Amino acid sequence: MQTTHSGTWIFTGSCSSQLGTVDVVTRYMAESGNYINEIHSFDDRVQGMFFLRIEFTPPSADFSVAHFNDEFVERAAEFDMTWALSPAAKKERVAILVSKYDHCLNDLLFRVRTGQLNIDIPVIISNHPDLEPLAKWHNIPYYHLPITPDTKLEQEQQILGLLAEYRIDLTVLARYMQVLSPSMCQQLDGKAINIHHSLLPGFKGARPYHQAWEKGVKMVGATAHYVNNDLDEGPIITQGIQTVNHALYPEQLISKGQDIERITLFNAVRYHVEKRVFLSGKRTVVFDN
Amino acid sequence: MQTTHSGTWIFTGSCSSQLGTVDVVTRYMAESGNYINEIHSFDDRVQGMFFLRIEFTPPSADFSVAHFNDEFVERAAEFDMTWALSPAAKKERVAILVSKYDHCLNDLLFRVRTGQLNIDIPVIISNHPDLEPLAKWHNIPYYHLPITPDTKLEQEQQILGLLAEYRIDLTVLARYMQVLSPSMCQQLDGKAINIHHSLLPGFKGARPYHQAWEKGVKMVGATAHYVNNDLDEGPIITQGIQTVNHALYPEQLISKGQDIERITLFNAVRYHVEKRVFLSGKRTVVFDN
Amino acid sequence: MQTTHSGTWIFTGSCSSQLGTVDVVTRYMAESGNYINEIHSFDDRVQGMFFLRIEFTPPSADFSVAHFNDEFVERAAEFDMTWALSPAAKKERVAILVSKYDHCLNDLLFRVRTGQLNIDIPVIISNHPDLEPLAKWHNIPYYHLPITPDTKLEQEQQILGLLAEYRIDLTVLARYMQVLSPSMCQQLDGKAINIHHSLLPGFKGARPYHQAWEKGVKMVGATAHYVNNDLDEGPIITQGIQTVNHALYPEQLISKGQDIERITLFNAVRYHVEKRVFLSGKRTVVFDN
Amino acid sequence: MQTTHSGTWIFTGSCSSQLGTVDVVTRYMAESGNYINEIHSFDDRVQGMFFLRIEFTPPSADFSVAHFNDEFVERAAEFDMTWALSPAAKKERVAILVSKYDHCLNDLLFRVRTGQLNIDIPVIISNHPDLEPLAKWHNIPYYHLPITPDTKLEQEQQILGLLAEYRIDLTVLARYMQVLSPSMCQQLDGKAINIHHSLLPGFKGARPYHQAWEKGVKMVGATAHYVNNDLDEGPIITQGIQTVNHALYPEQLISKGQDIERITLFNAVRYHVEKRVFLSGKRTVVFDN
Repeated sequence: MQTTHSGTWIFTGSCSSQLGTVDVVTRYMAESGNYINEIHSFDDRVQGMFFLRIEFTPPSADFSVAHFNDEFVERAAEFDMTWALSPAAKKERVAILVSKYDHCLNDLLFRVRTGQLNIDIPVIISNHPDLEPLAKWHNIPYYHLPITPDTKLEQEQQILGLLAEYRIDLTVLARYMQVLSPSMCQQLDGKAINIHHSLLPGFKGARPYHQAWEKGVKMVGATAHYVNNDLDEGPIITQGIQTVNHALYPEQLISKGQDIERITLFNAVRYHVEKRVFLSGKRTVVFDN
Repeated sequence: MQTTHSGTWIFTGSCSSQLGTVDVVTRYMAESGNYINEIHSFDDRVQGMFFLRIEFTPPSADFSVAHFNDEFVERAAEFDMTWALSPAAKKERVAILVSKYDHCLNDLLFRVRTGQLNIDIPVIISNHPDLEPLAKWHNIPYYHLPITPDTKLEQEQQILGLLAEYRIDLTVLARYMQVLSPSMCQQLDGKAINIHHSLLPGFKGARPYHQAWEKGVKMVGATAHYVNNDLDEGPIITQGIQTVNHALYPEQLISKGQDIERITLFNAVRYHVEKRVFLSGKRTVVFDN
Repeated sequence: MQTTHSGTWIFTGSCSSQLGTVDVVTRYMAESGNYINEIHSFDDRVQGMFFLRIEFTPPSADFSVAHFNDEFVERAAEFDMTWALSPAAKKERVAILVSKYDHCLNDLLFRVRTGQLNIDIPVIISNHPDLEPLAKWHNIPYYHLPITPDTKLEQEQQILGLLAEYRIDLTVLARYMQVLSPSMCQQLDGKAINIHHSLLPGFKGARPYHQAWEKGVKMVGATAHYVNNDLDEGPIITQGIQTVNHALYPEQLISKGQDIERITLFNAVRYHVEKRVFLSGKRTVVFDN
Repeated sequence: MQTTHSGTWIFTGSCSSQLGTVDVVTRYMAESGNYINEIHSFDDRVQGMFFLRIEFTPPSADFSVAHFNDEFVERAAEFDMTWALSPAAKKERVAILVSKYDHCLNDLLFRVRTGQLNIDIPVIISNHPDLEPLAKWHNIPYYHLPITPDTKLEQEQQILGLLAEYRIDLTVLARYMQVLSPSMCQQLDGKAINIHHSLLPGFKGARPYHQAWEKGVKMVGATAHYVNNDLDEGPIITQGIQTVNHALYPEQLISKGQDIERITLFNAVRYHVEKRVFLSGKRTVVFDN
């Protein structure tokens, strides 16, 4: 569901915790005629960091980011604040990487098509040919880049090439099922979201539903997180859960978990493109709504 | 769970939607050395109303409300803003009205005793004698004020007398099971919270679990709302839900619903005393955390 | 998720409550070499009715229903038991009626395509042309039968004609948005499932999300129920819920509720085709798993 | 909530999977005039084991277990079935072990007092004196058995002595906060339930909420499991979950998690005493309702 409003802009900023951090932004907003629709802040006492997200309506339709930045830069400098501006209506360019499972892909495509998720998907990349028909029906270019142990690095270069070619803002691993190389992780750092089919840190690595069955857990979950160097260890954006019982075998846990996987991934992508997620150390601050 | 921090203060304000509403507050906060820990706002496009809640740390321990008000009154006047200040550590004085069911009472007492809920309970009032031992163990005065159709208004006067005598800020109807007279409702307007054992507006009135069983619903719920003139129609603060199935008879729905009733009531009381709830028309704005 | 196992059969039976109801079935199962994989029963003390569901594996692949019935009929007669047999692998023929919203349709199609839902969808019927491309991609005949107040009964006859022509076992109203005539309701009685976008009995009738917003509820829900003569009053099969807050306007509640609508409808269809649902008065018995 | 009915008995049985397992029990039930109210079975395809739970009403109030066993033993022998009988109304004798946290203890005591949980608590044992007043108010003997590294084994002997003296059926570690010795674990094997304040297998060991905060998870949970030799590794009975966000520090996670801990522990105790739990390898079969 798109919860931002067209015509509005989003300001996000962060700096170390100090007196006046909110004021320096809201004062400029008032003075420059920008109307604040919503404001969220968080002051991380442990990291000593301050995070701010504001949705605002500019005084006129020809809002200039450059002008805002020019006027605001000196004020921000006092606080050593970093900030960004983004129109709520802007569609980020999101590449989707998949393998053979299509529940997450199908879900994202559906939400984009029906306006629930405000992104463009200019390209879908897979190491298998299976999901090409689905991509085709949505008129999205589909690249089948097979992978073998020998061609892994080369294939990753091809992917990175496509991400550049299509000017991708965010890469979503929608059950891509491949462990990325450290070098690729590094290049995608903070710009890629993965869905892992367990409630991390439980059941890292391969076949988490089988692990969950072995352990006899009564709940299975899904975790959407940023990709970083450490497998299944990137900062967690959001998590989902599903109650299960003894009567479900691993193949049924896999099936039952699909709903929670796709909803969890959707939420994470939405939070990200709506600029609701901040990194604070290894944790995330998420201004949900 | 107490989520405000000791030493902090809470500012709440509202006015009609207009440019500069956030700024007028945050600017004064910055100029007067008040450190903003957390800020929440909501702009109700339908009502054309703006709501603001700020948790802040004053520059010193001898923070003066009078001084703040003196300095802020002129700025607020420009916006026709109403506002209030309250120390996060302040314990509101809460009276609890009960009948014979004690799951809500027991829960609130437990949370107060263990520090999860930051209130004082100076008095418990009931139309039955049953729960006196529980009150006694917690050293809280217990008033048994029986009620008959003939004595209803008189009994309500006694209650109102006690609320005045004990300087009560908030009255909690913790399954009090009596329909209050219009006059009493009016006097408690906005200052009393009731827990109704259904997901309103479903199953208003008497015996909601029996109604739910008749209807064959697959979920039962609870609703905490402000008391107003209209039975079970006051502004909703929060709601909770519990999945049920065909095997549960009304008496078992009653039992199963108790957990959700008491947690829902606890949340509502916590939201209220932490100044997280605003009225916007017949709806509430709740800055949860 | 399909939770029945291929090769197994499902026995469902009901009769008035009396000694030996389970035994009469399980004894025959044992004597005839049918292996019981799972057994569920419910004894409705209010209705005085007994319900039984058994998943069993026949002794050989050439299991004969006629033979089972021949042998069992006399035993059942003693208890005045009605019963039915159905192979777990059998795909029921399900017609889907839609208007313009496609979240439920898309979801059902996806689950059928990926094997999560074990049904055939031989026909999709709509009063609007919008969803034809989606049907086409799945190679399913799509009938656009427009409706006006004048042509309503005629259009319903066309629908009933198609249901007969396509030998439909179950009709699913996947946000069809039309009030069916009493006559049509009667003909679909117990053979049609509707999804209503509220937690019934709250917010019956039109525009339930707008009603919910007006009322300021903190949860929205969905209800899947059998169609009967009484609008939004048919026996409830299952319900789902979604927490919401003050910041969501009706159009956003609509969007937010879609996930819970489609999952709730999917569950109801699955329960029905897996023979997990029994009617007991105006309530349902659902042997979930 | 007590979901069994007074006057009924519970039969539980298990054996290897084979034809006729249900029938051998239900036939005897029918022949001996025992009325089946509810029947649940599970056939574990991996373990090759069959599990059966039946609630039944005997033909008369003077039901004799010895007589049932005498008559049934030969039939059961054919299947190598082990079984047990227990009156639903029977109150198991449950010892509670605590440290200083009392949310679980308070919850269990409340549910016993109000009839939601059908057990007797003849003794409470703690390594701290803090919770004695709570025990006293409920007229339950409280033993303060302090523990030091040197006296650990001796203290455990004292506990085991008390369990014997009070003829305890089940021991509940309601946040006891002590790692039991292997010898004690062995003696309590299958007869003790622990609540761990995380969603196992995530965050085993000490200070799970602090671990959860470090990791930045968006959900915290609780796990009730049988005690065995392996710390936090015993068979899981049930689990509960609570959504959290970035704004909660460890001490607030601790507070927020209390509700889910106590409800999860209550459910596990209820399942156990209502004979709903079976062990199948390292996993549990739970016939919930």
